[in-house]
Amino acid sequence: MTDDTATTVLDAARRARAVAAGLAVLTRADKDTALIAMAATLTGRTNEVLEANARDVARAEESGTAAALIDRLRLDGSRVAGMADGLRQVARLTDPVGEVVRGFRLPNGLQVEQVRVPLGVVGIIYEARPNVTADAAGLCLKSGNAALLRGSSSAGESNQAVVAALREGLETAGLPPDAVQLVGGGRDAVKHLMRARGFVDVLIPRGGAGLIRSVVEESTVPVIETGVGNCHVYVDADADLDQALAILLNAKVQRPSVCNAAESLLVHRDVAAEFLPRALDALAGAGVTVHGDATVASYGEVVPATDEDWAIEYLSLDLAARVVDDLEQAVDHIRLWGTGHTEAIVTRSLPAARRFAAAVDAAAVMVNASTRFTDGEQFGFGAEIGISTQKLHARGPMGLTELTSTTYVVTGDGQVRS
Amino acid sequence: MTDDTATTVLDAARRARAVAAGLAVLTRADKDTALIAMAATLTGRTNEVLEANARDVARAEESGTAAALIDRLRLDGSRVAGMADGLRQVARLTDPVGEVVRGFRLPNGLQVEQVRVPLGVVGIIYEARPNVTADAAGLCLKSGNAALLRGSSSAGESNQAVVAALREGLETAGLPPDAVQLVGGGRDAVKHLMRARGFVDVLIPRGGAGLIRSVVEESTVPVIETGVGNCHVYVDADADLDQALAILLNAKVQRPSVCNAAESLLVHRDVAAEFLPRALDALAGAGVTVHGDATVASYGEVVPATDEDWAIEYLSLDLAARVVDDLEQAVDHIRLWGTGHTEAIVTRSLPAARRFAAAVDAAAVMVNASTRFTDGEQFGFGAEIGISTQKLHARGPMGLTELTSTTYVVTGDGQVRS
Repeated sequence: MTDDTATTVLDAARRARAVAAGLAVLTRADKDTALIAMAATLTGRTNEVLEANARDVARAEESGTAAALIDRLRLDGSRVAGMADGLRQVARLTDPVGEVVRGFRLPNGLQVEQVRVPLGVVGIIYEARPNVTADAAGLCLKSGNAALLRGSSSAGESNQAVVAALREGLETAGLPPDAVQLVGGGRDAVKHLMRARGFVDVLIPRGGAGLIRSVVEESTVPVIETGVGNCHVYVDADADLDQALAILLNAKVQRPSVCNAAESLLVHRDVAAEFLPRALDALAGAGVTVHGDATVASYGEVVPATDEDWAIEYLSLDLAARVVDDLEQAVDHIRLWGTGHTEAIVTRSLPAARRFAAAVDAAAVMVNASTRFTDGEQFGFGAEIGISTQKLHARGPMGLTELTSTTYVVTGDGQVRS
Repeated sequence: MTDDTATTVLDAARRARAVAAGLAVLTRADKDTALIAMAATLTGRTNEVLEANARDVARAEESGTAAALIDRLRLDGSRVAGMADGLRQVARLTDPVGEVVRGFRLPNGLQVEQVRVPLGVVGIIYEARPNVTADAAGLCLKSGNAALLRGSSSAGESNQAVVAALREGLETAGLPPDAVQLVGGGRDAVKHLMRARGFVDVLIPRGGAGLIRSVVEESTVPVIETGVGNCHVYVDADADLDQALAILLNAKVQRPSVCNAAESLLVHRDVAAEFLPRALDALAGAGVTVHGDATVASYGEVVPATDEDWAIEYLSLDLAARVVDDLEQAVDHIRLWGTGHTEAIVTRSLPAARRFAAAVDAAAVMVNASTRFTDGEQFGFGAEIGISTQKLHARGPMGLTELTSTTYVVTGDGQVRS
């Protein structure tokens, strides 16, 4: 069984590697034509996709899967149409390949250009939502990469139907269908993907903390870590408290299950007495349970906070809250407990904003704005492959550019080194 | 012993982490003052450094170390002066921290800036040459990073003396000496560095293929892979053969022990009869042993080549040579055997140059120039921390910019998501 899976994964990786060279030199027109063809075949196969999805959903219901997960898994006509629209939208984005990032001429006459090129073979490991399948395939193709997609088994039939449609679209457009492959095989497939160094150029795990940790720990293929967000909102002494309240509520409540939702509130001691009673009231009204320190507790009803509350990514209507002596204590708290995703400060003080932005060490810093804006769509990248919380290669929302590397092309007329 | 080493490494990493926040917000003036002070204390301690180095050299000679390695290890007054000059040169380079890489305003009025920030704690693992100690320390400081330097035990006393001088310079300038640390402990120190995830942000191994492979395989800290170079020179049908000969000789002979030296020659069948007799003659005259295929052998005396010759990085006066049917066969050979470092084409044909550059998949492509130009100094980066042969984060010569990450700073006036 394991050997079968190893063979399955390695064969897929070999096929991806084999088509990668051809994908790297496609023109934008070739790729856009294929993306539009993929959207058409996906639309044309809507019924097959929905039937496959219904079987996945039925199986999930039988096995007692939580309603929230089933909601993520379930497709309907408009969700499939949304996936096709997503592919058409990627076709409208600028091709990152070929961009000259830097260029200069050396004293000896050599012309140096740093040119954007595809990464090659991109492996994406993800959980329940089948729409990731189309999104990831589209972004990989547009950036000239072969995609190895490993979805969760719960969405297995849906993903197969989607990928079959996408591959039909690639063939219609005259491109190799192996540009987009669903990685099959048993539970060990992820392990074999992680060891496919030389065939796979990068792995992007999208999912829970456990998945991401195991990939980071075990992969010999380079990894881009995505997603765990213990995001803080710090209300400074110089904050506009109405803004602070609106930002806090939006960051916590608007969509609590995502990585850029706020998990912790830090309030400067000087404004605690004015801000916290209003904030606790509003949070309670929105159904939020506050886990507060002793000072926070003196302003309203809270669950006593422990170190676990400072560390956790709740992804629910819970919020850790602490009163700090000053901005430096807020920064220290964030550096200790944060996950480097998004940190927000609410302040009218320019020095405070500058100091906070320079010191918190996160992928994104929001000054007087909700943490929820850390998002490729919101940033105008058109689509997003994930939000990187690591420092190498890509940090923050990843669009097409982050799916590329560069090559130095140096042109001369016979120069040698002396 | 292992436990002592674990403690030693983790303590050093903790101290580095503790000073990293302060280093990240230093002004360029602060850093340049410190670099100049470090150059001064290093110069002032020249005698101590040379005495320490003499002890390292004596120990190496006693243990029968190869002459070439001892030459790399040995310092003299001018080499120490060169290290100090290197620090002063880094002081003259532009500070990469704070550069706004991208910036735009969103429809909702949010201002987004992607700003260059330090990586944090950079670990560098390197072999014999003690000058790397000063170079790496200078580049890390200038880019706002704390440096954890792990040199080879053969240069132990030299490195300690250099680092003591650099730390004295940091103190003179009012900066924390823990910005530059030599990582002590026994043989296992590298293993513990590789597992210091959360304390060390990136590891850069500089050395032989064995060191690099073991770090890539075992590290949970992100790695930037450097240096193995099986570089090819491809002489196209449309080559200027005088240029081709000059480039080939320079690439092979000028400094055969380095990663950007050429290891393989590929010659288009149409020019083989004209080029190879001249080339084999000139190579023999330069003391080069050619390992050729049967066609090459028909033009002169060669050692028969095996697959091992196509794969190897000789780092010596040896060269693998093959005649190819066309450019595509050259590209296929390079994609199969190359290490993604530097690939050169000699041609007057623009389509051939474009096709080769797009297809070989290397950190650098030389068109009518020697492979030896893939180098941070040559590219005008001022100094180089290594040459990356991986595709993530940095590819090709790495200067100050490659020792940074970025943060998105998003500034608004109360924006929330709807």
